[in-house]
Amino acid sequence: MGGMTQRDDREPEAPVVAVVLAAGFGTRFDPDNPKQLVSVDDKPIVCWSIEAFEQNPHVTDTIVVVNPQVRDEVERLVDEAGYPKVRMIIDGGAERADSTAAALQALGAAGIPPRAKLLIHDAVRPFVEQSSIDGCVTALDEFEAATVAFASTDTMLLTEDLGDRKVVRSVPDRANMFRAQTPQAFRFETIRRAYELASRDPDFHPTDDTRVVVDYLPDVPVAIVAGSRTNMKITTRDDLPQAEQISLEIRKRLARERMHQVFAQVREQ
Amino acid sequence: MGGMTQRDDREPEAPVVAVVLAAGFGTRFDPDNPKQLVSVDDKPIVCWSIEAFEQNPHVTDTIVVVNPQVRDEVERLVDEAGYPKVRMIIDGGAERADSTAAALQALGAAGIPPRAKLLIHDAVRPFVEQSSIDGCVTALDEFEAATVAFASTDTMLLTEDLGDRKVVRSVPDRANMFRAQTPQAFRFETIRRAYELASRDPDFHPTDDTRVVVDYLPDVPVAIVAGSRTNMKITTRDDLPQAEQISLEIRKRLARERMHQVFAQVREQ
Repeated sequence: MGGMTQRDDREPEAPVVAVVLAAGFGTRFDPDNPKQLVSVDDKPIVCWSIEAFEQNPHVTDTIVVVNPQVRDEVERLVDEAGYPKVRMIIDGGAERADSTAAALQALGAAGIPPRAKLLIHDAVRPFVEQSSIDGCVTALDEFEAATVAFASTDTMLLTEDLGDRKVVRSVPDRANMFRAQTPQAFRFETIRRAYELASRDPDFHPTDDTRVVVDYLPDVPVAIVAGSRTNMKITTRDDLPQAEQISLEIRKRLARERMHQVFAQVREQ
Repeated sequence: MGGMTQRDDREPEAPVVAVVLAAGFGTRFDPDNPKQLVSVDDKPIVCWSIEAFEQNPHVTDTIVVVNPQVRDEVERLVDEAGYPKVRMIIDGGAERADSTAAALQALGAAGIPPRAKLLIHDAVRPFVEQSSIDGCVTALDEFEAATVAFASTDTMLLTEDLGDRKVVRSVPDRANMFRAQTPQAFRFETIRRAYELASRDPDFHPTDDTRVVVDYLPDVPVAIVAGSRTNMKITTRDDLPQAEQISLEIRKRLARERMHQVFAQVREQ
């Protein structure tokens, strides 16, 4: 394969690494029953997320970030399912950003190349679409950073404090308002540099990896990749009925797809 | 009651008028089956909304804004239920703002006082909480404008165009990001003035009444009133399972409350 080829600028060999963040303590959920281990349609939420990347042909490796409370159970689930792409299960930190930082540290120590594509995903978004994962991988051919996001159907209000009350500061155009979802995707060297800069800032408490790039590398544009309504985040017990509903829709869709395949095979014979 | 009283500045006599906007054509729903007439737990969505204001002790009058497609059916439903607060059913316009403008016109013609409190509500938010309606009425004692809104659980991204792609412009603090809900509440003279100014602007296409005040009366602060997760907007058929789920929760809660009342009465006897 030596020499320059037409598609050389696309760096097709860069590994695509999924980072599944499952280190949350779910204080808004149920402290004794971590949400990433709760089952939806008989499958633990963390397994839904790992399997989304197992199924994606672009993703080469997965690392799972856990906390001490869930480590044993996640290890057991991964062993039992034998997910071939899962390379490491590492300990995260107290906040989301600490868990991402731990993953960056571990990946650096493991020697992944600077141009590797990282897809950082919240384990509690079990229903991420394959098209969104594909979209992240493709966007990184053109951009250093990308995030899955879903157009807001609600008008959003930016507020500020007025005495003890919140008041509206502005009402941004709905066409430019997106709900951040995950994966959030970055070239490894770019997200590592953003986190290095951020770690020097004592006021650094991001709830979102995209924000680290937006705030600390303001010249790096972050591309929007189409998300979906179903790529919901499970935050509280109130989200579970909707999650069960979505898993049912997915089950129906898969059954339909399988049936179409069977009919197609029958026709071909 | 003559003379100044301690609470005179609260203008307790101002009528509180609910404006229920049911003039949408629901192009994202089902053009042949307008969403405001679809039943949830056997009750048309528009009736859920009208009844929320019927039940609220502060609300004195309701007007319903319709389109020609739904007028007959809404009239029939209102007649059948005999809602005592419904004073008028008027025709709206092509866009949401046209419907609000039609309501302001009709209320002006009917001679409601400038300091009347208006609560403008989307009919397709059937599960508005009584506490949110109360909150609007109270907020207008202190502010000229208020809106029900619900803290965003998602990180929101403000985007801009870069070529044919959306990229992130900023990631506002989640603590200052609210999803606008309704009712949106205004003193009559204030919302009328904002609409007068807006009507002179040919680029005026707001999806939200609050925005009309924010954009055209920038010195008027709009207070945030606590909304709820359940105060959802029914936009597409995909929203119906969640709506049914919420109506079930409401039914259970009402049953519990009724049982508590019965036990309390038994104990008192």
